[in-house]
Parts: sequence; structure tokens; C-alpha cells
Amino acid sequence: MITSSTNPRPADFADVRATNLAVVLRFVREHAPCSRADIAASTGLNKATVSSLVADLIDRRLVREIGLTENRVGRPATMLVLDGSPYAAIGMEINVGYITAVAVDLAGERLLSWRRSFDSAEPAGQGVATVAAVVRRVVNRMAKQERQVLGLSVAVPGLVDTAGSVRFAPNLGWRDADLSGDLAKALRDPGFTIQVDNDANLAALAEQRFGAHSGASDLIYLTGEIGVGAGIILDGRLRRGRLGFSGEIGHVQLDPDGPECHCGRRGCLEVMAGLGAVLGRDPSPAEIQVEIEESVRLARAGDPATLATLESVGRSLGQGVSILANLLNPEVVILGGYYVPLTPWLLPAVQDEMADRVIAAEAGGCQVVASTLGHDAAALGGAARVLDSIDSGRLPRVP
Amino acid sequence: MITSSTNPRPADFADVRATNLAVVLRFVREHAPCSRADIAASTGLNKATVSSLVADLIDRRLVREIGLTENRVGRPATMLVLDGSPYAAIGMEINVGYITAVAVDLAGERLLSWRRSFDSAEPAGQGVATVAAVVRRVVNRMAKQERQVLGLSVAVPGLVDTAGSVRFAPNLGWRDADLSGDLAKALRDPGFTIQVDNDANLAALAEQRFGAHSGASDLIYLTGEIGVGAGIILDGRLRRGRLGFSGEIGHVQLDPDGPECHCGRRGCLEVMAGLGAVLGRDPSPAEIQVEIEESVRLARAGDPATLATLESVGRSLGQGVSILANLLNPEVVILGGYYVPLTPWLLPAVQDEMADRVIAAEAGGCQVVASTLGHDAAALGGAARVLDSIDSGRLPRVP
Repeated sequence: MITSSTNPRPADFADVRATNLAVVLRFVREHAPCSRADIAASTGLNKATVSSLVADLIDRRLVREIGLTENRVGRPATMLVLDGSPYAAIGMEINVGYITAVAVDLAGERLLSWRRSFDSAEPAGQGVATVAAVVRRVVNRMAKQERQVLGLSVAVPGLVDTAGSVRFAPNLGWRDADLSGDLAKALRDPGFTIQVDNDANLAALAEQRFGAHSGASDLIYLTGEIGVGAGIILDGRLRRGRLGFSGEIGHVQLDPDGPECHCGRRGCLEVMAGLGAVLGRDPSPAEIQVEIEESVRLARAGDPATLATLESVGRSLGQGVSILANLLNPEVVILGGYYVPLTPWLLPAVQDEMADRVIAAEAGGCQVVASTLGHDAAALGGAARVLDSIDSGRLPRVP
Repeated sequence: MITSSTNPRPADFADVRATNLAVVLRFVREHAPCSRADIAASTGLNKATVSSLVADLIDRRLVREIGLTENRVGRPATMLVLDGSPYAAIGMEINVGYITAVAVDLAGERLLSWRRSFDSAEPAGQGVATVAAVVRRVVNRMAKQERQVLGLSVAVPGLVDTAGSVRFAPNLGWRDADLSGDLAKALRDPGFTIQVDNDANLAALAEQRFGAHSGASDLIYLTGEIGVGAGIILDGRLRRGRLGFSGEIGHVQLDPDGPECHCGRRGCLEVMAGLGAVLGRDPSPAEIQVEIEESVRLARAGDPATLATLESVGRSLGQGVSILANLLNPEVVILGGYYVPLTPWLLPAVQDEMADRVIAAEAGGCQVVASTLGHDAAALGGAARVLDSIDSGRLPRVP
């Protein structure tokens, strides 16, 4: 009569060790440099257990010793930091007009960050070949650094099911594309896992791990790309919904009498607060960056028409953010993509609408901020997803 | 750099035992009658551990033996079922016009179900006295059955913060009322925990434990009372948001040119799809039940005006449900309260709107159904919340 997911699973002793390895790894990630005694004191694990777990992590080259410290009470202790020099996590984003690739080491340090143009008018099949070529170059670069690739996650702007199939990516024109399977084939079984995910979902994971609000356990990321989507983190985890299709805020209707949207409906968030609304027309992918910069320049110069447009876009965006705040009571909503440089002009109207529309006092404590991760957020989130699986106990084998 | 909630906590051995006691209790709840060997086989715990855990649960009178079975391969085994005869969990709901109280035993069997009228024009202080009187009667009844009260959870239609304070319950006229504290005082420290929660949240917990879709891990309950609110279960757990204010769908705006709402805004879900829209005006609490029955009678008789009203309400409700389906991709949205008898006439329009508005094919697999728990849902959910805390390892002491 009750669902299994509300209740704890049994903890047997193999589980306990895997769990505890992950706990120690995470403690070192957050508190390095730290000693074995620090770990024991903070986690409640006994010292012998900690020593054994640390030895295992050192064998796997996930943690290393950096010598003694004497700056503390008691006898000097050997300090530990994350190692991870033999590893790399790869994240990519495929979007209208561009492909982004990043690689990070176990500590999240950026190893590379590439961006190239991508003709999103290509059919999905050709797209796979283009993406696979980029992956091969990244993997080769990592191999030269003698790094083992821990995994690859690819962000796509659209509905991605929990098995990693792209069910519908309207702005790429893709439908029912098994991107992870096709990439694995194109890469001839590369020996690391390949995952595909929604761009907003991965950007939210990037914010959680690398962003300025990484401590927030209820965080929503809004993509400001050609499409507008939400990545929803509640109680510290991404919430994908039953089939993986959560976060589709772009076509929530704000006004039944609003302007017509590409989707055929009227007054969707995307048509009222998306790039088209900012720029006054649909730009070609190659021009967006330049045109947004021009909008910023005009806004800075106090151009009345630009300011009026941004205020109007901000009001619609505020209406959308208010829906999120009322339904989910997040701690922070992070505006990403092209919203980032526009945030100073959007924010007053957004906050105004929230003050009016959110039922809880002071918008339920919900802040709205610009992302600090820029256009790399989704790709970085791909790398974050790979690191997340390490941190939750799927450790790589001893290299 | 990463949040602690994305990662496992250390599992020490005291934790392991508490976790495993809860696992065994839950297994018995789901699979009784079952043997110790069944438990060992399914949970992966070894037989000696299971025997020790079961002995502990029997000592606490949470589990009992019911003799041998021979209907199985191998030697006869002693079968176990939930006991719980010495326990009761109490749930209550305070709403416009009524108070509901239920008590259930550990297995969820109903021990009592009371409903009385409640003058919600009373100030909160007087309300507390009324509620406390009901609680005292329930506790006395349980004492006569020699049952220990495991806890009490009270549902309120409004914003309840995570500490259990009622921040704002517009339809009761309450603001910043420390209901759990005031109740504890009025009951003179009754020796069990008192929790206060939002009505939609508790109703969602009731659906998860007692409802027809109890297996769904992504489930949303919509209250159909004087107010409309949502209880949101994602990945098997209630998602309250940062301060506990999630689920406020009632004043999400569907149409900026819609009718004026009590809140002063226009076109809110509550004014377009709430009781007032169904009945054509605001009924007094005492009349609602009769008037809803009259609507059902007229709809059944094919009255054109009633059918047109219900279709229009269904369209607005469908618009609200579509927002939930797009943002959260639930498996099921459950219509509660006064929506239940009206569902046959609301549903076609709801589904029509979802087919049009939800981006994922087939509404992302989201079903819409009527609650099977009727007006007891929120109170039952209070009892469910008490049982949830037992099932997740906060076991009562040996009685």
C-alpha cells in the first residue's frame, strides 16, 4: 500500500563500504586539505575504517597525500587532497548554431572549453557524426594528458526521456533520435558511459556544483537560448518527472490573447519573454550574439525603445518565474544564456511581478539572479553529471 | 563546492540497525503474512540479522507472529504480520466550515472518522480551543482502546512554514498562528508530537499511502475545496520547497482578462476553476455540499447550462493541470474534494486542454483521476504523515 521510494533501502555491508567511500571522497572534495582524523571526527566513522577507506581511494588515485602539517594542535597529520589527475569528465551541448564541449578533472578544474558552430538545419544523423568528431578530439586530447575519461553527458534543447532518447527537440528539428546509442556506435564503443539529457537539466546541475548558489537545495535554472526551459532541483536533486519531461515552461500560456508562438498557440512564455521578444524578431543563430550585445549597448545608453522592450520582457519573465515560485518555492531562480547580460534591465520588472503574484510574503524567499557560468552552463552540467555519479559511489576501477 | 544533499550520508552501525528495522517493518507492511526467510531472501539481509530485527519489532509490538504455515515448499515457517494494536496515528483537517478527525492503527486500518462543523469566522485563538477539544476526545477514545498515540498532524488550507507555523490561511482569516505550539499548550504537553501542514500536502501523502495510485512516485493532488492548492510528490517524496510554501497553484493567472478573484488579481485558477465558478457564486460553507449535489443531479439530467458551466470549469482546470504536467511531468494528477463527484463532467475538457497544451506526446503519460479518499483525504494524510515517520525509522519505544 505504500510506495517503495518513500522508505529506506536495506543497508548491507557491501553497500555500507561503497557509501562510506563516497562519503569520504565527498568530505575531501569539500574540506581539502584535511587529515584522516578530520574525516573521522566529522563523519562519525571510526579511525580504522577511515584509514582503510582512504587507502582504497589513494589506490584508485582519487585522493592523494600532500605531506604533513604542523599548524594544528596535537601531532602533525598527513593531509589529503583530491587527486583525480588521471581522470576527466566530458560535457557537451548541442544547440541551435553551436556545439560546446568542456572537460574537467575530478576536482572540477577546467581542462578544456571548446565552442564551434553547428548547422542545426542538418538532419540528426549528420549531427551525430559532427558531435562524434568533436568527442573524438576531446578524448584524444585527454589521452595525451594520460587521463581516463569517466563519462560523457550531452545536453540537447528538448524532451529527452529517462533512457536518453531525444523524443522531440523542435529547435533542432529532431524527433525520436537515440543520440546516446548512435554516438556509442559512431565512437565504436568507447569504454565510457554516454548520457544524453535536457539542456536546462544539465545547466541546473552545473549551477548546483559550480555556480554561485551551489549551496541551494531548491534551485531552478531558466535557459535563455532560442528556447526557454527550466531545470528543477528540489531537495538537492534534479527532478525529472515520470518520463524525464519536466521543466517545459516555454509553452506555458501567460496570455490567451498574446502574440502567436511558433508552436501555434498564443501568449506562451517563449514568445513573450524569449529572444524573439527581446530582439523584436527571430534572429539567425549567427547574429544573436551581436544583436544581444547591441541591445545591451542601447540599454546602457538609455535608449527608450530598448528599455521599454526589456521592461516588457521582464514582466513576462516575472510572470513565468512567479509560477515557479508559487508552485515550487525555490530558494533561487537562475537566469542563464542570453538573459545573463540583460539581467540588470530585466530584473526590476521580474521582481515587481513577483511581489504582485507570489502568494507567500517576500516571494517565499525566492531570489532571481544571473548565472555566473555563461553559455558553458549546459556543457559544464554534462561534466557535473559525470562527477555526480562518482560522488554518489560509482567509483572508477583502479587505473 | 557541491551541496551536501546530493550525496549519501555516512552509514555507521547504529544507523544501519535503525535503517534495517525500518526496512523489515516496511517489508512486513507490504508482504504480510510473510516469514523471516522471506524477509531475508528479499532484502538481502542475512537470516541471523533478520531474526534479531524481528525480535526487536515484536518487543515493540509492531509485528506479531500468527502461527505456522505449511502451504509452501520446505518446512513450515512462522508467519509474521503487522501488529500495531497498541498504537494509533491521528490526523485532522481544519477547513472552511468543518473539522475532520481520523485515527488509524499501524496497518492503516481506520479506527475512527469524525466530522463536525466549524465556524471559520472564529479568531485563530478560539479555533485552537475547538480543535484541542476534538483532539482530547480522540485521545480519550484511543486510551479506552489501550492505544498509545504515535502523533498528530493537522491540515490547514494555507501557507504553513517548515516549522509548522500557519503563515497565511486566507480562507480561515489566520495569519502567523503557531498552531502546533498553541495546541501543545492547550493539550498540556500530551506526550506525542504535533505537526501542522498544508492540506494539499497531507492529502497527497494520503493518496501515496492509501489511494488508488499509491504506487506512483510522481503524483500531484489538487484540492477542490473553497481554495485550490496542490500537493506535489516527486520521486516518492513530498516536495515542500525552501520554506514549505510549494503547491500554491490557486492564484496562478490563466487569463489577464479573466474575472476578478478574491485576491484582487484577475483570471486566477481559483476564480476560473474553483467552487465559485462551478456554482456561479460564492456559496456559504453550510450550503456547498447540497449545491454540489444539485449540480451533479442537473448534469446527470443533461441540463445545458450546467453542462456548459462544467465544461468551462474543466477547460480552466485543464489549463492548470497542463502547467503541472509541463513543469513536473507527473504520472497522475488526482482531483480531490468537491471535484470528485464532478469529475465525469470535468474530465473531457481537462483532457482536451492537456492534449493541446502539454508539449510531451500523450500529456507525458499524465493521467487525471478523481480521488477515492473523498473529503477525508487531508485528515487521513495527517495520519499518513505520522506513519511515514515510523516507517522511516522513528520507531516508538517498547510500550
